[in-house]
Amino acid sequence: MRLAVFFLLVASVCRAGDPDVSPASLPAFTAYENALIGAVSPASLRGFHDRMASRPHRAGSAGDQAVVAFLAKSLRAWGLEVEVQEIEVYLAEPISASLSLVSPVRVALPIKEKVVDTYSAHPEGSIGWNAYSGSGVAEASVVYVNYGTKEDFARLEKLGVSVKDKIVIARYGGNFRGYKAKFAEARGAAGLIIYTDPHDNGYFRGLGWPEGGYANPSCIQRGSILTLPYRGDPLTPFVPAGADAERLDPNTLAFPKIPVQPVGWRAAQEILKRMEGASVPQAWQGALPFRYRLEGGDKLRVRLEVKQKRGLVKTSNVVGIIRGTEEPNSFVIAGAHHDAWDFGAGDPLSGTIVALEAARAFGLAAKNGHRPRRSVAFGFWAAEEFGIIGSVEWCELHARKLFEGGIAYLNLDMATMGKNLGASAAPSLRPVIQRAVKLETGRALAKFGDLGGGSDHIGFYCHLSIPSAGLSSRGARGNSYHSLYDHLGWYRRVVGDSYQPARTLTRVVQRIMLRLAHADLVPLDPASFYEPVKAQLERLEEDAKARDVAFSRATLQAVLLEYHERAAVMRDAMRAALKRGTLKDEKRMEMNRLLREMERDWHRASGLPGRPWFRNLYAASDEYSGYAAWVLPGLRGAVERKDEKELASMQKAYVEAATRLRRRIEALHAVLIR
Amino acid sequence: MRLAVFFLLVASVCRAGDPDVSPASLPAFTAYENALIGAVSPASLRGFHDRMASRPHRAGSAGDQAVVAFLAKSLRAWGLEVEVQEIEVYLAEPISASLSLVSPVRVALPIKEKVVDTYSAHPEGSIGWNAYSGSGVAEASVVYVNYGTKEDFARLEKLGVSVKDKIVIARYGGNFRGYKAKFAEARGAAGLIIYTDPHDNGYFRGLGWPEGGYANPSCIQRGSILTLPYRGDPLTPFVPAGADAERLDPNTLAFPKIPVQPVGWRAAQEILKRMEGASVPQAWQGALPFRYRLEGGDKLRVRLEVKQKRGLVKTSNVVGIIRGTEEPNSFVIAGAHHDAWDFGAGDPLSGTIVALEAARAFGLAAKNGHRPRRSVAFGFWAAEEFGIIGSVEWCELHARKLFEGGIAYLNLDMATMGKNLGASAAPSLRPVIQRAVKLETGRALAKFGDLGGGSDHIGFYCHLSIPSAGLSSRGARGNSYHSLYDHLGWYRRVVGDSYQPARTLTRVVQRIMLRLAHADLVPLDPASFYEPVKAQLERLEEDAKARDVAFSRATLQAVLLEYHERAAVMRDAMRAALKRGTLKDEKRMEMNRLLREMERDWHRASGLPGRPWFRNLYAASDEYSGYAAWVLPGLRGAVERKDEKELASMQKAYVEAATRLRRRIEALHAVLIR
Repeated sequence: MRLAVFFLLVASVCRAGDPDVSPASLPAFTAYENALIGAVSPASLRGFHDRMASRPHRAGSAGDQAVVAFLAKSLRAWGLEVEVQEIEVYLAEPISASLSLVSPVRVALPIKEKVVDTYSAHPEGSIGWNAYSGSGVAEASVVYVNYGTKEDFARLEKLGVSVKDKIVIARYGGNFRGYKAKFAEARGAAGLIIYTDPHDNGYFRGLGWPEGGYANPSCIQRGSILTLPYRGDPLTPFVPAGADAERLDPNTLAFPKIPVQPVGWRAAQEILKRMEGASVPQAWQGALPFRYRLEGGDKLRVRLEVKQKRGLVKTSNVVGIIRGTEEPNSFVIAGAHHDAWDFGAGDPLSGTIVALEAARAFGLAAKNGHRPRRSVAFGFWAAEEFGIIGSVEWCELHARKLFEGGIAYLNLDMATMGKNLGASAAPSLRPVIQRAVKLETGRALAKFGDLGGGSDHIGFYCHLSIPSAGLSSRGARGNSYHSLYDHLGWYRRVVGDSYQPARTLTRVVQRIMLRLAHADLVPLDPASFYEPVKAQLERLEEDAKARDVAFSRATLQAVLLEYHERAAVMRDAMRAALKRGTLKDEKRMEMNRLLREMERDWHRASGLPGRPWFRNLYAASDEYSGYAAWVLPGLRGAVERKDEKELASMQKAYVEAATRLRRRIEALHAVLIR
Repeated sequence: MRLAVFFLLVASVCRAGDPDVSPASLPAFTAYENALIGAVSPASLRGFHDRMASRPHRAGSAGDQAVVAFLAKSLRAWGLEVEVQEIEVYLAEPISASLSLVSPVRVALPIKEKVVDTYSAHPEGSIGWNAYSGSGVAEASVVYVNYGTKEDFARLEKLGVSVKDKIVIARYGGNFRGYKAKFAEARGAAGLIIYTDPHDNGYFRGLGWPEGGYANPSCIQRGSILTLPYRGDPLTPFVPAGADAERLDPNTLAFPKIPVQPVGWRAAQEILKRMEGASVPQAWQGALPFRYRLEGGDKLRVRLEVKQKRGLVKTSNVVGIIRGTEEPNSFVIAGAHHDAWDFGAGDPLSGTIVALEAARAFGLAAKNGHRPRRSVAFGFWAAEEFGIIGSVEWCELHARKLFEGGIAYLNLDMATMGKNLGASAAPSLRPVIQRAVKLETGRALAKFGDLGGGSDHIGFYCHLSIPSAGLSSRGARGNSYHSLYDHLGWYRRVVGDSYQPARTLTRVVQRIMLRLAHADLVPLDPASFYEPVKAQLERLEEDAKARDVAFSRATLQAVLLEYHERAAVMRDAMRAALKRGTLKDEKRMEMNRLLREMERDWHRASGLPGRPWFRNLYAASDEYSGYAAWVLPGLRGAVERKDEKELASMQKAYVEAATRLRRRIEALHAVLIR
């Protein structure tokens, strides 16, 4: 092949993959991109992993401080502008816990993992605990509640079983564990035991650690049980948790009151196998070797004691920034938290190392003269595990700046747990993610998830209405989630030792960030909302009907259709102008501002009904399960609560949002034809 | 309501439900039907159950002889014409068996159910055994093969695991147990252990017997493992097994050679938990409390010894007949087998009592002057459990008579195991079944199954091409299938003691039989085949494509469409003539002959390729799993074997069958307009 033909081919491939880069910008863009992806090294990723995962580093611990220092030092060394945001946040700490059978036999049950490798013998390893559990003693008979979801408790009531004054046993799965505690406490339970059923993670799924990657009988999932209607530091909603912040009185907040304790199934089985009540509904049966029962009966009594301390703890977010040349106050941000329950090799560090390696590459490229038009930032968040605390405090600190300049946030929590790339994303980000994945891997993602709760995107997305995505590569045969076994020994045997999936993901992240920060036009899709909103409206209409709630999607859909017809035309017109090279910088930057702020058309300053902190009308976390995503949460909440008045008022809010989107497209059009 | 109006309403309802009864015949028909359904009594059903289920009665045993005598005596007492067909058939008998771990520990494992009630203490109760197992000893290490299906063994080979000289452990389910043995033996296995996994029947499904209805740890499923390419007595294919029959030499037949032993999971678990090989594919995991492994390793050795006797055994079919007034040589037959592995309260007697109660009612009605136009017969079949033996021998004895005069066969094996009525049926029978079910219960069946292998319909349907159906009422929360616990104590606690489902099913059966035997026009639907055949052709085309086999459904579908267009018109025309009362008896009877013989248009005297005994081109049992149904088995078999030559020749056979169906419709038309 002649060289000229080869370059023509390369250029056409690149153009096909980059509709947002003008022909004039393409050579420099390509050079920048090659510099970034060429810098990614599995050895470097591995080194970061060694450095951060070798010691337990719960938020505020000595291990955590060491990680913070390492992150700040590294980012500085690579030439990034570094912000260390010190925060003082209200965390919990385990003091002691005990669980035992009192009758028919006295047996003490284990509340910590068995030592089966050098890591699990580490003196700083924690007992099993659920942060923010009530402190106290419960001694009572027991009730099994399956996953302890809203539906499970409703079913139990229908079956005539009360949890009042009982110790409730729930298995992990189905919802955010905080809701298990909330629902149990609301129904008068005396205490809660949450265990890992082997049907969900254990021998029913695969061989247990250390022979295989799944839970062994003593494996315990730790985790916070906060269910406050906002995220971040419990005492400082809406404002940053600096040393001098005004703080709420903890006694006025709805912290859990009953003792809550997580255990492995070796402990749970001693209780469950002695239960004598009625057989469970079929979907409630787990993989322990007997039929599960709803009630334990009077002869079976269990004692649970939990002691925890709550108080202010210091920790820090670390953010590295490379300033943009064209729009220094616009930000494309990637991030992951740095705190872990113990070693955190998988959660969070398998993602944290990706963010860090991307930062290193961007730093290196900058040293070699490649700087983005818009700023890129890499956030390493504190105390995510306790309630998505650090990232939210950073969002609250920089709320105005981010609300104005935030282009996108890419979350990388626990992001390389296998080889299968996947993403949950705001619709406006999906096309650019898809282009990056295709360029890197040759294949498109089969589908996108909706972004729910449960990680550090929530401050950016749900509070500030900045388009966000969660990227991760999954599929390894194992699960050590929130256990003492989530360490480098486990990770390298179960997920792998090559760091190739982390390398691929880093390159995908770089490609996405570069496009968002450096393409001529910000590649947020102006015509992205119609299809997912339409699908959601159809579901809402069905669900409303099933609940006997009056709701018609007609009005809102009509407004959206108007928006969409203009938006689709607009997208093509922008690209055509870009391709022709007729877009003057002034126009282009004006259009970029309109694109950057587009997601804020969904923003509602007063938030969702009853959830003022959640301000994005497009998406929020599920109000009743915590992890899942609600799309159009204002309508969804009203339908779930069967509140027709609220539904009508929210419909108005949505029509306004859709109208804002339409006007934005008109504004883009006006700029383009000016 | 005025009385006249009431009767008008009743009459119109009846007419709507009985498109095959002329207005002139309706009053007598209705009186006959009311006499039948009015005679059905739960107390009578219960009494039959007591009489037949109180003692183990395996084919040929003293208990079996007592049941035969009771059946013949009862039918005679009710005024039916009784045929007792004595047969001498080649059965197996257990002598002894033992199963033990040899290393790493010596442990003897149980091969009989634990005594947990008075029934399981009965001295005539059998050990766990698989009839026709090879006799001999195997001592070897083990391999787990999941359900031991064709696909499971293929997967195992792909995983590089050989069963050669190993003792294979398979769980029940997924196929007919005989294929587990056949596949294991074909691959050189030394022996086979088949066990009940608690995931399929046991604590994963519900509480175990005697607390609940599911398998307890010692519960064993007995059963035959014959997989000969025909059904009935192994030594007399195609001909009746009378005392003077010419018999094949057993040594020339493919009986199992390796020892095969069924056990409960208490025994299996002792082996499975000691295995040390690689983890199984996810779908192979059962509900025992450890990860299942493919191989046991060298340290684990198991010894299996099975001793059985095979030889000729005498037993009898008992058939009660009420001769038809108009067509005495046409037969509507209902039946169920009478032999059981032990008590057989569920299998077969929960259906046998229904056939017997229906016979009693028909006998009573006959005494009161109600006689059907066409003959009705009630068959009580011998030795079904060993290989569907008695019913096939009866079919072979009366082959010509049945081939000419058989209208339909209704099978009632194990037919009342709960409250949810269901049916698998030849398409031509579906409308009349649906009408009967609606009349009796007010609701239609949601769907029909295809009729597969595994019970006494097979001689009628697959060998003689007489339209058949299997009716049953299911859904009780429990499963004692082929175990010592399938007794009256289990049945009455788990399925119920009211005999209301048996009453309902008896009335449904009577309604179907009466319509088939007494309606003016035989209610076999002449337009029934098109839809299911079309659907099956589409599946075959897809499956052929997936297997890279050339096949197009176009030609056959075109011929079928021709048939169907005429048939749909014909059905309406016949009904209209009937309604108008213009159908002379001579015409009517000529049309009835054409309808009665319709299913035989699918008949192929030379049978299916490689399976000459299976002569119905519409349906056969699955060649590789035994229980399931193959619709259009000639095409299906060729596609599965990827034999394009056979496929082409079978396609010709199917075009001929469809052409015969079309001509039959034309003949019906010719008679109607004559």
